[in-house]
Amino acid sequence: MPKGMRDFFPEEMIGRGKLFNAVKRVYEKYGFSPMEYSALEELKYLEKESSAEIKEMLFRIEDSDLALRFDLTVPLARTMAENPMIPKPFKRYCIAPVWRREEPQKGRFREFWQADIDIVGSTSMACEAELLACVSEALAELKIDCEIIVNNRKILDGLMEKSGISKKIEAIRIIDKKDKIGEKGAMDELTALIGEGKAKEILNTLTLTGTNEEKIAKSEKIFKGIKAGEEGINELKALLVLLEEYGVKITMDFSLARGLDYYTGTIFEVKMKGNDKSIAGGGRYDSLIGKFGGPEMPAVGISIGIERIPNVFPKNKTVSEVVVIPIAENNRKYALSIAKKLRANGINVELDVMGRNFKKQLEYANKMGIPFAVIVGDREEKECKVKLKNLSTSEEKELSLESCIASFIVPL
Amino acid sequence: MPKGMRDFFPEEMIGRGKLFNAVKRVYEKYGFSPMEYSALEELKYLEKESSAEIKEMLFRIEDSDLALRFDLTVPLARTMAENPMIPKPFKRYCIAPVWRREEPQKGRFREFWQADIDIVGSTSMACEAELLACVSEALAELKIDCEIIVNNRKILDGLMEKSGISKKIEAIRIIDKKDKIGEKGAMDELTALIGEGKAKEILNTLTLTGTNEEKIAKSEKIFKGIKAGEEGINELKALLVLLEEYGVKITMDFSLARGLDYYTGTIFEVKMKGNDKSIAGGGRYDSLIGKFGGPEMPAVGISIGIERIPNVFPKNKTVSEVVVIPIAENNRKYALSIAKKLRANGINVELDVMGRNFKKQLEYANKMGIPFAVIVGDREEKECKVKLKNLSTSEEKELSLESCIASFIVPL
Repeated sequence: MPKGMRDFFPEEMIGRGKLFNAVKRVYEKYGFSPMEYSALEELKYLEKESSAEIKEMLFRIEDSDLALRFDLTVPLARTMAENPMIPKPFKRYCIAPVWRREEPQKGRFREFWQADIDIVGSTSMACEAELLACVSEALAELKIDCEIIVNNRKILDGLMEKSGISKKIEAIRIIDKKDKIGEKGAMDELTALIGEGKAKEILNTLTLTGTNEEKIAKSEKIFKGIKAGEEGINELKALLVLLEEYGVKITMDFSLARGLDYYTGTIFEVKMKGNDKSIAGGGRYDSLIGKFGGPEMPAVGISIGIERIPNVFPKNKTVSEVVVIPIAENNRKYALSIAKKLRANGINVELDVMGRNFKKQLEYANKMGIPFAVIVGDREEKECKVKLKNLSTSEEKELSLESCIASFIVPL
Repeated sequence: MPKGMRDFFPEEMIGRGKLFNAVKRVYEKYGFSPMEYSALEELKYLEKESSAEIKEMLFRIEDSDLALRFDLTVPLARTMAENPMIPKPFKRYCIAPVWRREEPQKGRFREFWQADIDIVGSTSMACEAELLACVSEALAELKIDCEIIVNNRKILDGLMEKSGISKKIEAIRIIDKKDKIGEKGAMDELTALIGEGKAKEILNTLTLTGTNEEKIAKSEKIFKGIKAGEEGINELKALLVLLEEYGVKITMDFSLARGLDYYTGTIFEVKMKGNDKSIAGGGRYDSLIGKFGGPEMPAVGISIGIERIPNVFPKNKTVSEVVVIPIAENNRKYALSIAKKLRANGINVELDVMGRNFKKQLEYANKMGIPFAVIVGDREEKECKVKLKNLSTSEEKELSLESCIASFIVPL
């Protein structure tokens, strides 16, 4: 097994499939349609707007200009640049693996799955509202209690403008890691970069407290006459009104920066309540597609990190709902005919392929956690009946095949 | 877009999703459970039992001992060797991409999807019967009319033994390409390899004609006293009996060889009727897992080539079933409340995010092929109603929201 990668045995995979389906169903209810991309991308796209850190993490293919994708936004931007005439808004979801060649850590893999939704073609905050409503419904569906944190890059830009800071990207990087290095650490690093006065001014605004409305009122005063700041505040205000209508709650946090350099407006991060773990994130990237060679196209997206989601589904070893067991070898053919009919009714059926006797077949069914056994012997065969056994309660019933089938469609 | 690879826009992907689901449903009805593997594998496994041809086709990762998998059997064999204690039979399916660095041709890609089922742990022909019944049901579900061709490697081995041929692998390679080079071509190449007499003897047996029963009767005489041949014939006979019970028809063809060296018993190939294109293939590989470092474990599997399946599903541009359109800006909030209720009932709903007027929203819905519009204006809002418009017939109905929802659950 390659380092930092995983196989998913049925015990994991059955629950993962249910998780994927739950997310898909919600994404589709919001009108997002599925799209998939080649796993490999050309380096010219992968390296275009990426940090040096990401470039170090590429799984590069020998003797080629290709590497495995590290996210699902680069392929989206490439396909949009390649197909500029596609009708807008273009709303797609993609649930697929991405690869990063970094040191594996607990809960952090070199191959991991993302579940992205993006809207291309509109600058309206209605996009952000749909994305956040959709993701919070998906996470609620998975019984995850979370907090949505929202900021806008233009507010950070406004701050830099107001304080006359030229080392913008460096300053944003420091703000970005504030949670890791602490407020004191951030203050020290910012002071070293831009001097104590400006560092204080910035950190004061970033750490404004109060309700969203109070933060907005305070920051409106701060950004009076600063174009980027005013725009950022107005976008956040518009988003708050829409989210109120959707019934989605957010926390505004001016210190949220998020690493990626290509964000141009709203940025969001979703954290699990209780452990503060980041479970989803995204933002607006209105200039990325243009930089990939397409016409300028506004776009905004959010990505759920699938591996961050605690599994809420039971761990089954098999999809089989029932095993059909002949009591003796001469009942094998009748058992097969029963299995065929159950399968024709959409029921997942296990049939022995090991040449095992009755007892061993039951043992196997119990070991695999198959919930029911349909048992057929001479008497059942003669009377065209079956014996249905609940393997967890040992309860048995003699039934016609029709009643047996019905009992699976409306389970016992 | 990297050479020989593809993106799947919603127009393709929605149908592909339905195709995948149809295959999955059938696989699960036969008690196969899902499993997935890391995309990258260590070269020691990828190169172990592979032909020189396949080794040339690996997408290798720079500065590592890794490459992208070229099939789903190598990962299965590796995981079984790594986890020898997993309960048997182990029945899994895997629908996933594989990668081969070869010259792309029409209908042949460098990244393509396989849908595999395998059974590990049993030498019984009951495995082959379940696999073939399952695959033929999956293909029937996809409206594909196909022919299943079956042979057994032991028959080829028996032939070599009977004729005293030592260059077994070379001879099987020639037999394998008989369809491409023609019978005459095969005769010439075999003659060059083993002499005219033996070449004739082999080709005569390979091209036996008649029903399956006639072929068996003839070959039983030929293989009298040749152990491998007798075993092969007996396995085929046992399989025929089982398949009769399943109602699955096959064609025995002693000249079917299939390239992979690791097959040890039954081999199968599924061809589309009419164009003779191969759509699935597989066989028994009882010694592969042992060679990967695990204990000896019998195994047999079959793989559907997803890209070979003609798409039977309609090409939709979006998953959205309905667009909710406010007649004027002041109806937007009511429209959103309607959209929320439709979504809560599992209906896929599109809502404008472009700030478009009524007419433009309808135009977009028509362009995307969204089947229905729910239209709400002042009157609808006042009366707590909606107007439901069928966008293909232009038929309109005024309905309560409840009736509107019901009309989607049982479509108009």
